[in-house]
Amino acid sequence: MDIQTPRGTRDLPPEEMEKRNWIVQTIRCAYESFGFRPLETPAFESWELLSKKGGGGDAIKDEIYYFKDKSGRELGLRFDLTMPLARFIATNPQLPKPFKRYQIGRVWRYDRPQAGRFREFWQADIDIIGSSSMDADAECIAAVSRALSNLGLKKFNIRVNNRKILNGLAKSLGLEKKSSEIFRVLDKLEKIGEIETAKELRKIDVKAEKILKTINVGFQSLDPSTEGMDELQSLVSGCKRFGVKVTPDLSLVRGLDYYTGSIFEIEAGEGIGSIAGGGRYDNLICLLGGQETPAVGISIGVDRLSEVLKASFKKPSQVLVASVKPELLDESIKLATQLRQAGISCLTDVSGKGLRKQLDYVNSAGLQWVIFVGPDEVKAKSFTLRDMRTGKESKLGTKALIEALQKA
Amino acid sequence: MDIQTPRGTRDLPPEEMEKRNWIVQTIRCAYESFGFRPLETPAFESWELLSKKGGGGDAIKDEIYYFKDKSGRELGLRFDLTMPLARFIATNPQLPKPFKRYQIGRVWRYDRPQAGRFREFWQADIDIIGSSSMDADAECIAAVSRALSNLGLKKFNIRVNNRKILNGLAKSLGLEKKSSEIFRVLDKLEKIGEIETAKELRKIDVKAEKILKTINVGFQSLDPSTEGMDELQSLVSGCKRFGVKVTPDLSLVRGLDYYTGSIFEIEAGEGIGSIAGGGRYDNLICLLGGQETPAVGISIGVDRLSEVLKASFKKPSQVLVASVKPELLDESIKLATQLRQAGISCLTDVSGKGLRKQLDYVNSAGLQWVIFVGPDEVKAKSFTLRDMRTGKESKLGTKALIEALQKA
Repeated sequence: MDIQTPRGTRDLPPEEMEKRNWIVQTIRCAYESFGFRPLETPAFESWELLSKKGGGGDAIKDEIYYFKDKSGRELGLRFDLTMPLARFIATNPQLPKPFKRYQIGRVWRYDRPQAGRFREFWQADIDIIGSSSMDADAECIAAVSRALSNLGLKKFNIRVNNRKILNGLAKSLGLEKKSSEIFRVLDKLEKIGEIETAKELRKIDVKAEKILKTINVGFQSLDPSTEGMDELQSLVSGCKRFGVKVTPDLSLVRGLDYYTGSIFEIEAGEGIGSIAGGGRYDNLICLLGGQETPAVGISIGVDRLSEVLKASFKKPSQVLVASVKPELLDESIKLATQLRQAGISCLTDVSGKGLRKQLDYVNSAGLQWVIFVGPDEVKAKSFTLRDMRTGKESKLGTKALIEALQKA
Repeated sequence: MDIQTPRGTRDLPPEEMEKRNWIVQTIRCAYESFGFRPLETPAFESWELLSKKGGGGDAIKDEIYYFKDKSGRELGLRFDLTMPLARFIATNPQLPKPFKRYQIGRVWRYDRPQAGRFREFWQADIDIIGSSSMDADAECIAAVSRALSNLGLKKFNIRVNNRKILNGLAKSLGLEKKSSEIFRVLDKLEKIGEIETAKELRKIDVKAEKILKTINVGFQSLDPSTEGMDELQSLVSGCKRFGVKVTPDLSLVRGLDYYTGSIFEIEAGEGIGSIAGGGRYDNLICLLGGQETPAVGISIGVDRLSEVLKASFKKPSQVLVASVKPELLDESIKLATQLRQAGISCLTDVSGKGLRKQLDYVNSAGLQWVIFVGPDEVKAKSFTLRDMRTGKESKLGTKALIEALQKA
């Protein structure tokens, strides 16, 4: 029988998930410190919403998990957290603006599975709704930077660009109607290389290749009065206010259709690829039937980030309160209850195991601490604490035990 | 266009979601204090796994969201967190036992939507895998009790029973083959009442109604040597060790097919219905092709629990660092950065708003605190903090500001 995880998905076993919880908690604290508040939306949305032209666009449409409910409603698993947010804003126009929300959760794309790329993955988003000022864009970048720094990530490179500039390039060649298609190809530049990109661009239009050439030369080839250049400059100086350095990069494009202004991408180092990305999408909420509402946001790819943070997570330690004799389990539980109330994670036997088997378990499960509860210990109200890494033992009363383990 | 949430699902706006985060965090801490470790599994599983006979059973099969991926694989959204865990254990036999895991997340059932019942809902599960001792069952109940107490829930009633006893009743009438069907009907007793239950039981078999009569009389009608009675007694005394009182109730049945021994259910009061439930499922892992492995677990229904905990959650407070003049935004951000590093959630203007509009926002968003950053304040390095509920103001340096807000 088929009892594997479905293709492109995976389990996160305890050691992975403990790290994941730490990452999510750290990101959440950073986001909350900037005044972002949490929002949750359903895992699936109406197909009509998800497949909306000008939303995710054709790049995403073929990658959505599509299904019908038993009444025939067409649904799809969400492919990002931005479309659900835009829907929430469109249907809740009464919300005070700016509305600052974060959302951390899973999204699904039926992409080709690759090393480190899954069909189910986690995103950690912040968005500011209702401000068209570049201060909002800068704050999103600053909050994500804060989260990454708090996770101990020392080096990351923040590239920024503006879709208005790119749109201008397409327009100057009479290609504005094909711009989504062109951007989708340009977004693959790093992945497929220049020659392949140029080839695909020529397929769209012979003139399209010229955009690639301009991008390669960079901003110096552009008139400073080009639409979007002012916003880009405001963004750079806005980020500086937060002590965050960003690098303008004309070759940054991003694949989704809904971007209208600033776009950003964060890389953690050579060859690792993007760990966060986002941008401004001032038309999306209106497109979904809501009021005209400027919006900007950025999303951390949690799975990729977790890969990058390989070394920096310290596994929380656990204690086994071992009963030297089975009839002392009551005493072990009594002691464990006191430790738990002090925030210490501890286990007592649940299998009627003798002492030797309890210690075998300590070894196989890799627990760091054992407390021995024997008749003498109970009488003296002083217990032996053993550090399994060093074998060092000490006799401690309950209060001293708690202090020792809290410090450990 | 259809931009509502799909039928039976809902958004959790910030005020709801802040409460939800607090509930989840409190449950997680309680679970971890008992040495349970986190596991995550995909949102969807193979249809073959989910529809397995003896797993969720017919009661669930019709309620699963079913779909195919683009390669034709049959999949379904998970309907609980137990089947995925059983799959994980079956495919990872090397794990040291007992394996204690928690999982908090969403599950989906295509049930008829009702007040307070959704098609997408959250569960918070713990399970102990690899122990057949009732000490494991007792510990699961104790950990959930601890979580509920830590959430401030004062009164809850824990009912327990044992499927072996119920199976014995069915067997004594020659109805063991129809027992799942019978249990499914009996599980509806509280919902549909005695007359309707009796009617449905008669439909299954004329003798089935006798089980209902025995259940109504209670345990005193049973021989103390009945199979399962010893386990029930061990469970009651095991719970007592943790200071947790449980009530044996012969009418407790539970609907799922996979239970084999203890079953439990927790209610928070009259008419609120169950907020947690679970039991022992010693055959499930083997049924999925794994080694024979005893298992027990319990699940909190987070949505129902959140309803019950209406009053006890205090909204986290936020501060607006208001720029008296637009050119002071740099100074506001500088101050905000210091407050954020001290763990205080604060906002600065991101919309180029004047002071009056910033204060309008404070009112409409219901923020509790405002700090005024004006030219004099910057010069004196002392800022005015206003409590918006009382209108009270005080002039404070950065350090004193942080202390005042941390205490608030």
